[in-house]
Amino acid sequence: MRITIIDYDESHVEDKEAKRIEECFPFTDKPTVTWININGLHQLDIIEKIGEHFNVHPLVLEDIVNTGQRPKIEDFVDYIFVTLKMLRYSDEEKETKAEQVSLILGSNFVISFQENEGDVFDPIRQRIEADKGRIRKMGADYLAYALMDAIVDNYFTILEKLGDRIEDFEEELVVNPKPETLQAIHHLKREMIFLRKSVWPLREVINRLERWESSLINKSTAIYFRDVYDHTIQVIDSVETFRDMLSGMLDIYLSSISNRMNEVMKVLTIIATIFIPLTFIAGVYGMNFRFMPELEMPIGYSVVLLVMLFIGILMFAYFRKKKWL
Amino acid sequence: MRITIIDYDESHVEDKEAKRIEECFPFTDKPTVTWININGLHQLDIIEKIGEHFNVHPLVLEDIVNTGQRPKIEDFVDYIFVTLKMLRYSDEEKETKAEQVSLILGSNFVISFQENEGDVFDPIRQRIEADKGRIRKMGADYLAYALMDAIVDNYFTILEKLGDRIEDFEEELVVNPKPETLQAIHHLKREMIFLRKSVWPLREVINRLERWESSLINKSTAIYFRDVYDHTIQVIDSVETFRDMLSGMLDIYLSSISNRMNEVMKVLTIIATIFIPLTFIAGVYGMNFRFMPELEMPIGYSVVLLVMLFIGILMFAYFRKKKWL
Amino acid sequence: MRITIIDYDESHVEDKEAKRIEECFPFTDKPTVTWININGLHQLDIIEKIGEHFNVHPLVLEDIVNTGQRPKIEDFVDYIFVTLKMLRYSDEEKETKAEQVSLILGSNFVISFQENEGDVFDPIRQRIEADKGRIRKMGADYLAYALMDAIVDNYFTILEKLGDRIEDFEEELVVNPKPETLQAIHHLKREMIFLRKSVWPLREVINRLERWESSLINKSTAIYFRDVYDHTIQVIDSVETFRDMLSGMLDIYLSSISNRMNEVMKVLTIIATIFIPLTFIAGVYGMNFRFMPELEMPIGYSVVLLVMLFIGILMFAYFRKKKWL
Amino acid sequence: MRITIIDYDESHVEDKEAKRIEECFPFTDKPTVTWININGLHQLDIIEKIGEHFNVHPLVLEDIVNTGQRPKIEDFVDYIFVTLKMLRYSDEEKETKAEQVSLILGSNFVISFQENEGDVFDPIRQRIEADKGRIRKMGADYLAYALMDAIVDNYFTILEKLGDRIEDFEEELVVNPKPETLQAIHHLKREMIFLRKSVWPLREVINRLERWESSLINKSTAIYFRDVYDHTIQVIDSVETFRDMLSGMLDIYLSSISNRMNEVMKVLTIIATIFIPLTFIAGVYGMNFRFMPELEMPIGYSVVLLVMLFIGILMFAYFRKKKWL
Amino acid sequence: MRITIIDYDESHVEDKEAKRIEECFPFTDKPTVTWININGLHQLDIIEKIGEHFNVHPLVLEDIVNTGQRPKIEDFVDYIFVTLKMLRYSDEEKETKAEQVSLILGSNFVISFQENEGDVFDPIRQRIEADKGRIRKMGADYLAYALMDAIVDNYFTILEKLGDRIEDFEEELVVNPKPETLQAIHHLKREMIFLRKSVWPLREVINRLERWESSLINKSTAIYFRDVYDHTIQVIDSVETFRDMLSGMLDIYLSSISNRMNEVMKVLTIIATIFIPLTFIAGVYGMNFRFMPELEMPIGYSVVLLVMLFIGILMFAYFRKKKWL
Repeated sequence: MRITIIDYDESHVEDKEAKRIEECFPFTDKPTVTWININGLHQLDIIEKIGEHFNVHPLVLEDIVNTGQRPKIEDFVDYIFVTLKMLRYSDEEKETKAEQVSLILGSNFVISFQENEGDVFDPIRQRIEADKGRIRKMGADYLAYALMDAIVDNYFTILEKLGDRIEDFEEELVVNPKPETLQAIHHLKREMIFLRKSVWPLREVINRLERWESSLINKSTAIYFRDVYDHTIQVIDSVETFRDMLSGMLDIYLSSISNRMNEVMKVLTIIATIFIPLTFIAGVYGMNFRFMPELEMPIGYSVVLLVMLFIGILMFAYFRKKKWL
Repeated sequence: MRITIIDYDESHVEDKEAKRIEECFPFTDKPTVTWININGLHQLDIIEKIGEHFNVHPLVLEDIVNTGQRPKIEDFVDYIFVTLKMLRYSDEEKETKAEQVSLILGSNFVISFQENEGDVFDPIRQRIEADKGRIRKMGADYLAYALMDAIVDNYFTILEKLGDRIEDFEEELVVNPKPETLQAIHHLKREMIFLRKSVWPLREVINRLERWESSLINKSTAIYFRDVYDHTIQVIDSVETFRDMLSGMLDIYLSSISNRMNEVMKVLTIIATIFIPLTFIAGVYGMNFRFMPELEMPIGYSVVLLVMLFIGILMFAYFRKKKWL
Repeated sequence: MRITIIDYDESHVEDKEAKRIEECFPFTDKPTVTWININGLHQLDIIEKIGEHFNVHPLVLEDIVNTGQRPKIEDFVDYIFVTLKMLRYSDEEKETKAEQVSLILGSNFVISFQENEGDVFDPIRQRIEADKGRIRKMGADYLAYALMDAIVDNYFTILEKLGDRIEDFEEELVVNPKPETLQAIHHLKREMIFLRKSVWPLREVINRLERWESSLINKSTAIYFRDVYDHTIQVIDSVETFRDMLSGMLDIYLSSISNRMNEVMKVLTIIATIFIPLTFIAGVYGMNFRFMPELEMPIGYSVVLLVMLFIGILMFAYFRKKKWL
Repeated sequence: MRITIIDYDESHVEDKEAKRIEECFPFTDKPTVTWININGLHQLDIIEKIGEHFNVHPLVLEDIVNTGQRPKIEDFVDYIFVTLKMLRYSDEEKETKAEQVSLILGSNFVISFQENEGDVFDPIRQRIEADKGRIRKMGADYLAYALMDAIVDNYFTILEKLGDRIEDFEEELVVNPKPETLQAIHHLKREMIFLRKSVWPLREVINRLERWESSLINKSTAIYFRDVYDHTIQVIDSVETFRDMLSGMLDIYLSSISNRMNEVMKVLTIIATIFIPLTFIAGVYGMNFRFMPELEMPIGYSVVLLVMLFIGILMFAYFRKKKWL
Repeated sequence: MRITIIDYDESHVEDKEAKRIEECFPFTDKPTVTWININGLHQLDIIEKIGEHFNVHPLVLEDIVNTGQRPKIEDFVDYIFVTLKMLRYSDEEKETKAEQVSLILGSNFVISFQENEGDVFDPIRQRIEADKGRIRKMGADYLAYALMDAIVDNYFTILEKLGDRIEDFEEELVVNPKPETLQAIHHLKREMIFLRKSVWPLREVINRLERWESSLINKSTAIYFRDVYDHTIQVIDSVETFRDMLSGMLDIYLSSISNRMNEVMKVLTIIATIFIPLTFIAGVYGMNFRFMPELEMPIGYSVVLLVMLFIGILMFAYFRKKKWL
């Protein structure tokens, strides 16, 4: 469990790592913006101490610690509580993983809780320290926006990776459809269900943030939340488009598999069909009747061979004409 | 039919089992919170006596006794009536069973009706007796919340069990798809329909509880109902996700069954196809024509055997090259 | 066309069958509740006379007579017009039939119009005459509720019958799927479409009745309409569940039919496949080459038979191992 | 392009055909109701003159002339503009055709524009002239209602024809499914898409008419628009039901085609399968080994024939027992 | 990057191409309407200069430059920002391409940003210069309408091209279904997903424009935006109809492919089936039993041949009768 504090206003920044959570509290009494970031949620006493000091509702503390929450937002007048999913694409497991990030936005502070050490918030830290962009001139609500924006922007990275994989499979589908491709499509489909579950409620969350008339959110910051909202909608759009594409791919896969199979069966059946009447003729002249005049004729054999050849060619031509071959 | 009463406030608890329903009534005249729990609904006279004493609308009494109700809520100013489904997973029958639980929330009492003896409310009883958490400090509305929360939390247990079964079948699907797997998937699908039917209306019920401006529900308790609401949404989300997963599994099952069948048919057809032309050749030299020069040649037999071998290998190679084998 | 009148208040009941519609009118001038029930809609002059006397809008009269109406409700301040579908399951035709029932609710009277003589309203007549329940103590709005409740309760009987048939087919599906089962499932599916069309608009109708602030509906009666509304929702839920179940059954049917077919084809193909190579061997030794050393060997025949047996067993074992048999 | 004028009030009617559009204008200055009907839209100058005289917005004129409009309604305070689709079933082409009808409803006039001469409005003309029903007693808004009602009533005729064709195909499906049936079903399905596109927006249009608080629409006429609205909903319901039925028919078609095919394949395969082992036996005794003791036995031949018969019967019985035949 | 300026009012027009963006600014200080069109978005400094001069919010500038935006609208009191997709059908790639167009509508100016040089706005430029229609008499809001209308009208061109391609494929489907047709249908389906994604949000955008009570939009212009809105709905309707048609085509394709395959298999199997029993008979009389009385009879051979012919004809007739051939 690692606690880092960044305290800043337009003219100064202070960045420190706290050993004990109590070190953070003096910062929040000053008018400067304070960002307390907590990595790891297993030390319940620290969470409880924060709850006590900032007068956070016990249910909020429960929601922070139980990481299976649906993205949601709650306005407690003195502070706003937001919980989101941060997504991470694990290259080894070829799977998207979700991690819960919770934010408490007070009048001059933001407390962020992450399940594990992550690097999504690093650019924001750097922006604060280097005084890049608007961030140092704005309040805690803008910081909350920046954090949420970082999380949503990260979704695009995930979507791009999934989009690449979809395109890979698409090419494979046409060139060489394999049962594994089917499995992979279903795997991707399930990832889409998962993503959708993480992103859909987010839309509602950010929409509320933008519309609420909370004293904690400055009018001039609302437009930024609207921007995050637009991005969320774009993410949802992409997820839906990917889902549609995957359904289409499934259809193509199934019909191209059955096409291939049909091609095989057709050719094989035709070969069999051509030889079966010929074999019958051979069978007829293999009969042991005493009086079979053809058998005695010197040209009998050659004639039969020619007839067989003729029948074979005829059938082949017929199948060709019917476009069965 | 078993009647238990728990009467408590911050400083005392009284827990007793009543023989006659009339024993309960004096408790509700005191300002303390009274929880009357009734197990079993077959003694209509007791239900009617409660109705009379608490001035409950006859339709409510009907709804309590007829256990096929849809979850619903009704505000009668003096009391709020809520009916929910409690779910139980029966391990023997491998099926989820629903049981109706009804609550009447008055200003200082809660009456709960269960179809059968259950253990879902035991933790709440223990919490009251041991004075754990907030429950002893809060009113009857919080008690109603606690009971509903216990029921909704129980849904997660059911979902987990269903989730485990889904995962079991999933593995089976890939390793060894059987017609029984299909039956099992359909069975699970139907359970999802059943769950959905129980849980969907609950969302509306709890949403109303949270939004209503009833004098029976304290402002500070509303946030707890919001928490139950969030859990209900999560349950609904999971049910929908499971449904999507089961549909996907059905698709995989069907296509893997047809894949296996196609594989079988293909190999068998190929074997037949290779031997049919060879059998034809054998048939030709089995004909009894008098003048068949090949038959007289000493190496005729070996040559024909070699030709047959050659044709067989050629066809095999061709099928291989075409990736049919 | 049969006209019956029941006139009642808390202290008296009068029940008579009218020859002419004019006999009914004096009753409605008294403060007692009057229920005029008209069976059969072919005598337009009677309908028109009612329209004139009660000042009913001509469009309402048209709606009463044209029995293809969608369930609807209309508030004309002086009276409320409701039209519903009464369902009847015809055992001979194994089909659900719909019949239109229209109600005109005035301040102290209800006029009900039925297409044919039916027995759904009999229990209400008996309840009024025997003074059972609340009905004699309440006004015309309660009578309207009682009539609509009788109709909606009747839906449950229909649903039960359909539910039984669905379960019958379900068992048949697993034991012995036949093309007729498919036809039957489709037939039931169509019945569901039909039911849905009758019941869906009802929801809206009754919801409006409950919410409208009409002077014709007493506040204390509104709760009863809410009860009918809940029943309607339950009917809709059941119809939707049945539809889902039927879709699932169709899937099971199709896949079990194709499973059976595949089983047949597989076994047959395997038999053919085992014998084709053996027949080839027999063909080889049926060739008439002069120099075929095996033919001269005394043990040739036995060896070949043994080789054939061996090949047969080998192939059989291979198919077994591959789980094709 | 044909212009007809009907000018009427309770006491008089005047019916004339105008050569020039200017002849119509004096009528609209009188307090009587004037209905100007224009057939054909190719003479743009006439439309423009109407636009000028009645002060119609240029966009409305564009919408009248461009006949690909979606049904819509627009309130311009002085007049209301409505555009609808009139449907016509062409028996030769077996296809439903849509034609645009636009209405301009002023305080005491209605101008209707039709693409082609049609007979849908004839009954209204006759009703006005014969003074049948309410029409002569009501204002221009009632006339607009009557026109729209005529159009919507015409939909039912179309639906009936389509319903008949659906039933025809349904019988064909069961008796003798052919690829042409499939084409026909798809054709009907597309007609449903087309109808739906024409009718869906109508719902919105008429709903607005009924709800708007326009001074052009009398309170007492609103109920008539509600009636048209109900009819529109009924049309939409029927279209949806037909769509559902067609989907069901497609499923039946596909499964009955595949059923038939499977029946064929099964019987054929069984025949082949019975003879293949028998042919093998014949092949064995066709071998030319010198030492084949069975061949020398006098009863060899009869025994083998009997064995073959026995095997054939056995296999046939087995297939019967397995219900494969 | 090309900057063009058109400045106009009822009495004059000035049209020039600017080298530097600063040349544009003086125009906007005059009361005349100024349209600044910017082609190409790569010179960020120009965009920034515009932002500075017109006091545009930095997020808007970002949205202009990042061309992956979803169509959206934002009201900043002083100006309205709109971003849309312009579609272009590339004939070489047979694909629809989207290009982002952004508009800033101020009180007396419109700034439009295009990704590439396009010709969609040319007719508007000509209309302004030739003083055709209303455009010179109206304000900047009408110019914004004209630009958006040009973009939406362009969608119809795209839709027409896609509609033509759909019809082409439809004919191909019936005449000669090929795997490439399947690919093409899927390709078109994906284009529909793409179009839908571009057009759906547009509906919301234009709806807002029409409803907003912005001081920038004149009451008399709102009706024009409503017209664009109607067109957008029509585009969406067409896209949905095309999607439905493509789904239907996919079904037809799959069932006609499988029909063809089944026809092939059936005929071939029947041929094989007829010859298999005949071959068996030939096999029987090819057996080498010493005592086979038929073999010795002089007419044996002819009888067997006749029997074979008879069986063949019988089977053929049977298959015919069963409609298998």
